[in-house]
Amino acid sequence: MGVRIVGTGLSVPETIQTAEELSPLVRRSPEWIASRTGVLERRIASEPSFVYGARAARQALGDGGPPDLVINASLTPYQLIPDTSVFLMRELGFEGIPSFSVHATCLSFLVSLAHSVAPLIQTGAYRRILVVSAEISSISRDFEHPESAVLLGDGAGAAVFEPAETGGLIGFSMRTIPSGAELAELPGSGTRFPPEDPETPAGSTKFRMNGPRIYRMATGHLRAVVDEVLGPLGLTPEDVDVCVPHQASGPAIAAMRAANVAKGNIIDLIPQYGNCIAAGIPMALHEAIASGRAKRGDKVLFVGTGAGLHTAAALWEL
Amino acid sequence: MGVRIVGTGLSVPETIQTAEELSPLVRRSPEWIASRTGVLERRIASEPSFVYGARAARQALGDGGPPDLVINASLTPYQLIPDTSVFLMRELGFEGIPSFSVHATCLSFLVSLAHSVAPLIQTGAYRRILVVSAEISSISRDFEHPESAVLLGDGAGAAVFEPAETGGLIGFSMRTIPSGAELAELPGSGTRFPPEDPETPAGSTKFRMNGPRIYRMATGHLRAVVDEVLGPLGLTPEDVDVCVPHQASGPAIAAMRAANVAKGNIIDLIPQYGNCIAAGIPMALHEAIASGRAKRGDKVLFVGTGAGLHTAAALWEL
Repeated sequence: MGVRIVGTGLSVPETIQTAEELSPLVRRSPEWIASRTGVLERRIASEPSFVYGARAARQALGDGGPPDLVINASLTPYQLIPDTSVFLMRELGFEGIPSFSVHATCLSFLVSLAHSVAPLIQTGAYRRILVVSAEISSISRDFEHPESAVLLGDGAGAAVFEPAETGGLIGFSMRTIPSGAELAELPGSGTRFPPEDPETPAGSTKFRMNGPRIYRMATGHLRAVVDEVLGPLGLTPEDVDVCVPHQASGPAIAAMRAANVAKGNIIDLIPQYGNCIAAGIPMALHEAIASGRAKRGDKVLFVGTGAGLHTAAALWEL
Repeated sequence: MGVRIVGTGLSVPETIQTAEELSPLVRRSPEWIASRTGVLERRIASEPSFVYGARAARQALGDGGPPDLVINASLTPYQLIPDTSVFLMRELGFEGIPSFSVHATCLSFLVSLAHSVAPLIQTGAYRRILVVSAEISSISRDFEHPESAVLLGDGAGAAVFEPAETGGLIGFSMRTIPSGAELAELPGSGTRFPPEDPETPAGSTKFRMNGPRIYRMATGHLRAVVDEVLGPLGLTPEDVDVCVPHQASGPAIAAMRAANVAKGNIIDLIPQYGNCIAAGIPMALHEAIASGRAKRGDKVLFVGTGAGLHTAAALWEL
């Protein structure tokens, strides 16, 4: 039993924030922002993440009717309880369809693909699965840490999966490396620094990452997971038709290229949208398919590193 | 290919809070607390949830070596980023094993069972999966809402799954009902009421639920999901050997019994531990197996309602 992507969607807020507009907030020049990160502009949300998620979902669902399972593969919570899949369901007008949320930082979409979508369709448990990643990271920007702050943007991506004769997940490997937990974190909003605890330090809900250290720590693992996916199939990164990396930053994608984990036809939305956390991969997948760069039968390599550190690679036949 | 539960674990904080101790905080008598909820005492955490989660995990893993996948099926976050599976991994001393988090409120463990554990083992993707649910709900208690506050407690449960010739998930059904989203919620800690936003109302990180309204809205759906699981197999709730319900409250379990969705040998840890959110189901599963009430070959019915509302039932052959 194969699995086919029958639709994809992308939705971003209308509001664009340029490097010029961001420049005074982070006290760096527009040139510094663009050259350090590759991000020329990013979108800033004015509505909850599930609103953009639902728009991307409707585009992905097209005329095909409702799904039989909804997965919210995002880290952005609307509330702590219920999980955000419920609000996405409500926004879509769905009642009674099973839904849940997966959080594996930037790799939430990829993790859902390998740990729920593919095996659930292969075993016949579901026949039309909607996965949505919708993130609002702009409110977590710490303007005192320009290196991280200028990367982030808001957006949503979605995909719908159905059984098919061929295609689907043909290889997956993942490594979680907790010794890198501090290299990218938002320490607040949980029991470590409870939001209403007077002892919680100011700024606990701001995101900070050390991109260069992440890539030093993660590169070996990234190469390993890519080798673990491609090696058994007798393939190398050059044999991949399209690479959909996590949209971390311009330098991160360049580093993956340099480390030979991503080659050739790489989808890069960083200049337009920046780092939209878990939404980056399905947004780039949508772009790959909608632009015609990825076609039925193509081998797509998903690859990336997320806070955790999580590192993973998946080979998918469209 | 079947799936076997090869180990389970339970860990709770040492500190016990009795109805007598809770009484002045909620301005209700110990008798009111016990009779309204069935909770005689609950545990109060002094360490992060993943510490208890790791203890339950070690018990579940036993001498069998590390797992090849770790799922944190809990709603309690330690931080927003990374997801709490990373901290659980670190506490367990694991590096390089894939991990992620699932949040489906109180049904996170059950959702992981049906949407990851069973299909991943059936398809051969993994051979030893650890699922941990570890929750700290005591800090979210709103003592101005005694009906909810006196229910909550802290604890952790874990289970390890491996391939087997027989056994495993033989039926599952779930319905998510977003029209009930307001009936049990913790509105803060997300983008709706950002923790550091001056406009966020005080008390946003407190949990409130309306148990009677939840059960009025959910009962029909609960009966339906149980029927959808048992009906095709020619079974009724009377044919189930052991019922492991979500440990919501004494009245909730009584209501499930009255509605004929849970019968006979029902595991009820409410008097000792109260409502430990998603940890309740694996804690009760551990109790069922450790006490000998559930034996190899038995049919176990998992059933419950969580904030969302999520409702689900699963039949599992031990």
